[in-house]
Amino acid sequence: MTQVYNFSAGPAMMPVEVLRRAEQELCNWNGLGTSVMEISHRGKEFMQVAAQAEQDLRSLLKVPENYKILFCHGGARAQFAAVPLNLLGDNNSADYMDGGYWAHSAINEAQKYCTPNIVDIKTTDDNGLQAIKPMRDWALSDNAAYVHYCPNETIDGIAIDEEPDFGDKIVVADLSSTILSRPIDVSRYGVIYAGAQKNIGPAGITVVIVREDLLGKARQELPSILDYTVLAENDSMFNTPPTFAWYLSGMVFKWLKEQGGLVEMEKRNKAKADLLYSAIDRSDFYRNGVALQNRSRMNVPFQMANPALDPLFLQEAKAIGLVALKGHRVAGGMRASIYNAMSIDGVKALTDFMADFERRHG
Amino acid sequence: MTQVYNFSAGPAMMPVEVLRRAEQELCNWNGLGTSVMEISHRGKEFMQVAAQAEQDLRSLLKVPENYKILFCHGGARAQFAAVPLNLLGDNNSADYMDGGYWAHSAINEAQKYCTPNIVDIKTTDDNGLQAIKPMRDWALSDNAAYVHYCPNETIDGIAIDEEPDFGDKIVVADLSSTILSRPIDVSRYGVIYAGAQKNIGPAGITVVIVREDLLGKARQELPSILDYTVLAENDSMFNTPPTFAWYLSGMVFKWLKEQGGLVEMEKRNKAKADLLYSAIDRSDFYRNGVALQNRSRMNVPFQMANPALDPLFLQEAKAIGLVALKGHRVAGGMRASIYNAMSIDGVKALTDFMADFERRHG
Repeated sequence: MTQVYNFSAGPAMMPVEVLRRAEQELCNWNGLGTSVMEISHRGKEFMQVAAQAEQDLRSLLKVPENYKILFCHGGARAQFAAVPLNLLGDNNSADYMDGGYWAHSAINEAQKYCTPNIVDIKTTDDNGLQAIKPMRDWALSDNAAYVHYCPNETIDGIAIDEEPDFGDKIVVADLSSTILSRPIDVSRYGVIYAGAQKNIGPAGITVVIVREDLLGKARQELPSILDYTVLAENDSMFNTPPTFAWYLSGMVFKWLKEQGGLVEMEKRNKAKADLLYSAIDRSDFYRNGVALQNRSRMNVPFQMANPALDPLFLQEAKAIGLVALKGHRVAGGMRASIYNAMSIDGVKALTDFMADFERRHG
Repeated sequence: MTQVYNFSAGPAMMPVEVLRRAEQELCNWNGLGTSVMEISHRGKEFMQVAAQAEQDLRSLLKVPENYKILFCHGGARAQFAAVPLNLLGDNNSADYMDGGYWAHSAINEAQKYCTPNIVDIKTTDDNGLQAIKPMRDWALSDNAAYVHYCPNETIDGIAIDEEPDFGDKIVVADLSSTILSRPIDVSRYGVIYAGAQKNIGPAGITVVIVREDLLGKARQELPSILDYTVLAENDSMFNTPPTFAWYLSGMVFKWLKEQGGLVEMEKRNKAKADLLYSAIDRSDFYRNGVALQNRSRMNVPFQMANPALDPLFLQEAKAIGLVALKGHRVAGGMRASIYNAMSIDGVKALTDFMADFERRHG
């Protein structure tokens, strides 16, 4: 069959080597005669899978020793509630940077638990392009329990590449769409969380990295399955974890190490994004509405000067194996999500098609 | 290799036909050239998977039209918090039947949100065997928001086979370990919930069946991902659901229909349990400590008169492919979990081994 390149924003493509391995051992894992999804999470075989996954993630992200890594249920949206309920304590306020749809969704949930100081960090540059204010201009308050932001907005393809540097403020970041795409300095954050279904593994598991001194402050009404302290004390096995998703995530971490780790990933992701944005910028046929310094390397939305061509573009692309290119329903146009598992060949196939389409319809 | 029979209490074995099918289409599902775990939950392909799974589950359990079926994150333990936060409203009390470890865990979590009326329903019969009081003797209070109980305790292997009949009281049941093992009358319940990893599918997805008139009463502090009303309004896609687990669950529902549905499952489960309990009762070499009327058909714990033989039993059993027979760490001894996916052949292999072991060591 045709080679398919899947540009889905999430659930997104996974490394083909990982899927092939999962296929080979789906019914007989590790010679046990059962599937890895059929064994107890408390048995020594799965405990090894879990520990190895944590160790590999710690090594990839260079997570300092004073941080716990948790594997949780519920997706990033669960963390929208878990963060305030774990970190607010008696404080009734937190700084929430509003940079787009996902940051805003986190704010909506936080409003159940506190009165967030909402800071609009969206702006436009001199050319009318969407941009994010530099961090030095973020209007943080003095007594907030923490600062929350989302460094990559998947719908508009807007990214904040600066790493936070707010003194002793507790920084919380939703890294669902950028984790593992480049090296970061974990020590600058109090809490990092990320739903798996973009750069980690299948939907249904969420990674939380939390600095140990932030544990033990949970509000009483916090459901135990979202309680970082409970999860940390139980090695993320307070309840039955999503074992198969954990196993697959672990295989992705291993794959990333084999590929050369996050320095190599950053190199590849930059090359892929540069290739795609160049194809967009080459003429006025395609357009991306984000300022250069805030263009996402993970999610690349683009519009055509003639939007009436959108359906034909999507149809022809799909016919040659370039799938899931439709923009988010609130944004329209096209969007190519090019996470770690997308190869440069996939992006090349897309830019070749874009040039060909422009030649025929421009 | 040896045929392996897996008696794990959960994550538990899945129907081999389902795993084989998942293996075949893991890398190329439905001819799309991608895995089912790599596609958007909002695309028409996955929406069909989701809708078909719901429809098959509705048909298997004969769920009345005025009940919503939700596919949730978080496991049954998430429901220990979700139930009070969704159903208590302004009420500060609910009746909680304490019949064992899991019922008790639900009580511990409920105590964050209300003052539960805890009813000890455990008792012993005339022979000193563990038993559960009949429902007519349960001391329910007058003004509780609902009545919560767990009809099957996996650790002690204690089951309540009576179906609830408490007039217009709202009955909430944790069916994690019994759902789909026999027909039930859903209309007797207000809310049914069940973690998937025993009789439904892999760990990481939870089914909630809720009567529509109970929606809309959530407490403000309820995290949205646990809010039945939010989930119902969004067809369980308020956030990215655990798509691969949902797909596998759907295949299990289809398999159950092909096998003859829940009437057939009940017949098979009764036959399997009868065979195993007969093997235990045949002599004093093995022993089960539960009163006849409360013996679980799903989880069969048994002890040997000489517990010093336990390690040898487990080792020899494992060597011939009878795995995961060790009792829960709080109970000791042995336990055979024989959910829907366990065949009568598997139970026969176990009882043959038990007889042989007794012959050699009795």
